Amino acid sequence: MRIPLLCLLVRSFILLCFVEIVLSGFTSSFIRSEWPSTDIPLDSPEFSTPEGYNAPQQVHITQGDYDGKAVIVSWVNMIEPGSSEVLYGKLKNQYNLSAQGTHTNYTFYKYRSGYIHHCLLSGLEHNTKYYYKIGTGNSAREFWFETPPEVDADASYTFGIIGDLGQTYNSLSTLEHYMKTGGQTVLFVGDLSYADRYHDNDGNRWDSWGRLVERSVAYQPWIWSAGNHEIEYKPHLGEFSTFRAYIHRYATPHVASKSNSPLWYAVRRASAHIIVLSSYSPFVKYTPQWLWLREELKQVDREKTPWLIVLMHAPLYNSNGVHYMEGESMRAAFERWLVHYKVDMVFAGHVHAYERSYRVSNINYNITSGNRYPVPDKSAPVYITVGDGGNQEGLASRFLEPQPEYSAFREASYGHSVLELKNRTHAFYNWIRNDDGKSVPTDHVVFHNQYWASNTRRRLKKKQPNRQINLIATY
Amino acid sequence: MRIPLLCLLVRSFILLCFVEIVLSGFTSSFIRSEWPSTDIPLDSPEFSTPEGYNAPQQVHITQGDYDGKAVIVSWVNMIEPGSSEVLYGKLKNQYNLSAQGTHTNYTFYKYRSGYIHHCLLSGLEHNTKYYYKIGTGNSAREFWFETPPEVDADASYTFGIIGDLGQTYNSLSTLEHYMKTGGQTVLFVGDLSYADRYHDNDGNRWDSWGRLVERSVAYQPWIWSAGNHEIEYKPHLGEFSTFRAYIHRYATPHVASKSNSPLWYAVRRASAHIIVLSSYSPFVKYTPQWLWLREELKQVDREKTPWLIVLMHAPLYNSNGVHYMEGESMRAAFERWLVHYKVDMVFAGHVHAYERSYRVSNINYNITSGNRYPVPDKSAPVYITVGDGGNQEGLASRFLEPQPEYSAFREASYGHSVLELKNRTHAFYNWIRNDDGKSVPTDHVVFHNQYWASNTRRRLKKKQPNRQINLIATY
Repeated sequence: MRIPLLCLLVRSFILLCFVEIVLSGFTSSFIRSEWPSTDIPLDSPEFSTPEGYNAPQQVHITQGDYDGKAVIVSWVNMIEPGSSEVLYGKLKNQYNLSAQGTHTNYTFYKYRSGYIHHCLLSGLEHNTKYYYKIGTGNSAREFWFETPPEVDADASYTFGIIGDLGQTYNSLSTLEHYMKTGGQTVLFVGDLSYADRYHDNDGNRWDSWGRLVERSVAYQPWIWSAGNHEIEYKPHLGEFSTFRAYIHRYATPHVASKSNSPLWYAVRRASAHIIVLSSYSPFVKYTPQWLWLREELKQVDREKTPWLIVLMHAPLYNSNGVHYMEGESMRAAFERWLVHYKVDMVFAGHVHAYERSYRVSNINYNITSGNRYPVPDKSAPVYITVGDGGNQEGLASRFLEPQPEYSAFREASYGHSVLELKNRTHAFYNWIRNDDGKSVPTDHVVFHNQYWASNTRRRLKKKQPNRQINLIATY
Repeated sequence: MRIPLLCLLVRSFILLCFVEIVLSGFTSSFIRSEWPSTDIPLDSPEFSTPEGYNAPQQVHITQGDYDGKAVIVSWVNMIEPGSSEVLYGKLKNQYNLSAQGTHTNYTFYKYRSGYIHHCLLSGLEHNTKYYYKIGTGNSAREFWFETPPEVDADASYTFGIIGDLGQTYNSLSTLEHYMKTGGQTVLFVGDLSYADRYHDNDGNRWDSWGRLVERSVAYQPWIWSAGNHEIEYKPHLGEFSTFRAYIHRYATPHVASKSNSPLWYAVRRASAHIIVLSSYSPFVKYTPQWLWLREELKQVDREKTPWLIVLMHAPLYNSNGVHYMEGESMRAAFERWLVHYKVDMVFAGHVHAYERSYRVSNINYNITSGNRYPVPDKSAPVYITVGDGGNQEGLASRFLEPQPEYSAFREASYGHSVLELKNRTHAFYNWIRNDDGKSVPTDHVVFHNQYWASNTRRRLKKKQPNRQINLIATY
């Protein structure tokens, strides 16, 4: 649905005024009074298991194909394998369709997982509400989801961005606040359960986390990316594999985008092309992720998906003392491409605070003689760190001083973001601070699309058909 | 064996005079007349198979433990599995010892490998010649190797450094020149057979390469590191795994250094602690390689192994236009550690030319406000690129101009290096150019050990027991 032009202009003006105020970089002085984050106990009602013998739990869905006509439904049966079938249809209680999934399980040190089911529902219609049912008899459970509109340049859509969530009372606040925003799909920037921080890397905390977030992710897809807490490389426990629990539990549609790994992939949804990268997999030249990204970026068609969004865990720009410059290795590998393809936004997590950059790049850095500072660059993405979901590690409050020129806004609070893609040219963005339990919109930006926002696009394209268009892109 | 002091001093003086000459950085004007590299045909005698039914071929050995009291003997039987047993002993033709190995094989697209055997000979005595026999009946073959001296600060030892070898007539020159040097062990810096450059990623070129290098590696260990040509990620052939042929064929003693991957590991040999890194595996913070390296560096005891040597494929410092700055991601991850632990030399390949750096570091680079140039740093390693073994891709002759200040010597010729560790304080180093078939020592350096070379070491250590010692280290 398009927003009337006048309404858009008025809102843009108000928000741009705000942007002007913080153009020199703003560090919020807000200090939370609740500190630190307290874990929700395992026997708390927030983690309650569903009634019925072997009832499906930890239900979660994600996009199941490239363009949003499929959904992967996943869940866990704790006692016995049970059925991998999903019944579904457009009418409540009338499931005229069914799909058969598969199940898997794994062990990790002393922990033995339940039976993890993944079932692909494909051939769905766009913009349609589907009801689905899993489990049998008294243990059956019913949910619903809505498919996105067809991939289209003006398809409006609202994404939430959540990272580093964990399972504290702050995590719960973030989740509840997000669920009130009208967000239709979550872009999750890594670090899910923090199970690796519990005694013996307690897999039960993967299960409790699955039950905690079910309230959202059973009803709308979360697009997953992996963080360092998903690695779970634990030699002292005799566990040498990486990403074992994460890969068993959280399916991704990587094959649809020709990726050979569930850890990096892409989906198109409404007017967005979303690229998920893996900070902790090989990514330098010649490696599978590098080769894949090079090809995937060529697939991006801004005429169909104007909004090019990249997700990763470790931020490439971060002025917090915590994890400072940990993204440098990936920046060295990929920043040039992000600028060349005029990525709109790069969302990351990892740092337990919020930060938004200006459009900057540091691609002229050259070990021999180049510039060392990030410089303003209209073709560059805005880098946004939303690593403040609310996990038990607390907040990262030591920002570097003075605030670097590339940093536009930063605050060490729990929270999440909402990105409303309005049409091919405009998107409204909000970071919403938890604020001691209350949901407080704090950082507002109107983003102008990097490809469509300039009137000169068509003219330039005609004149210079083989050149990348240098748009006048503001936010 | 210690070199008499006077002899050392005289040789050092002569060589240091040479070093002085090139202190401002030297780009050799030498141009090879043979150009480009020509592949050795598969039916050439250089690749000939041994006589006898199913005779063991492609025989190669590598260090089998942490300290040089074990050897892994590997070979391939092409027709049937055959025996995995190795007979060995100190006397020729009298094999009073035996060890039982295992065999494996693999397929890659249309190629099916032979039966690849790996057999560990452990509990060997130091400084001892062993004879060994593999295969049975008329097909049996006999070889020998010499174990290194016990790990000791003054144990002298000679290493060859070869990279990017391939299987051309230039590769053969490099190999033959190296075999005349008296080198006792090869440090191989990645890119072995270049099988991935042949039609359908022809696995037969792994076999031919194995037969080509047997003349050296059946008699002395080569310490392996993996290059980009070992990745062999070939989606268009339906092959999505990585390093498959390499890992099947070239065993490494990674378990002895508590690594979870054959791609990164460490060995101690004579007076050297050698760390092998993998340029194309995950290496950023939190990944297994990063965690492993952090621990392994703590294990280094310069009182026992004064010479700390790191091998990798992609160089961290390279002023050639080819592969320029491809090592930046790993530099961002590891350079600080290399300087902190006063690594003596970092050997790399990848760039098909030779280059040696001064002792420089760029660890003060800071995305916010730091220095951008590499600066002279007495604690830093010397970075040496020896990617000029002679493969079919030819030479990388486009050096950046002007020569950066960090670059001491560079020349686009085929060749290899020899490093003679004389005692705890001194090592003689030579890069030997192939020079159209002739072996010509070209870049000579006397290295002073980063830990032992200064007389002030003991005094400083006493005064500042908890601080890293800032030695006055020259070349």
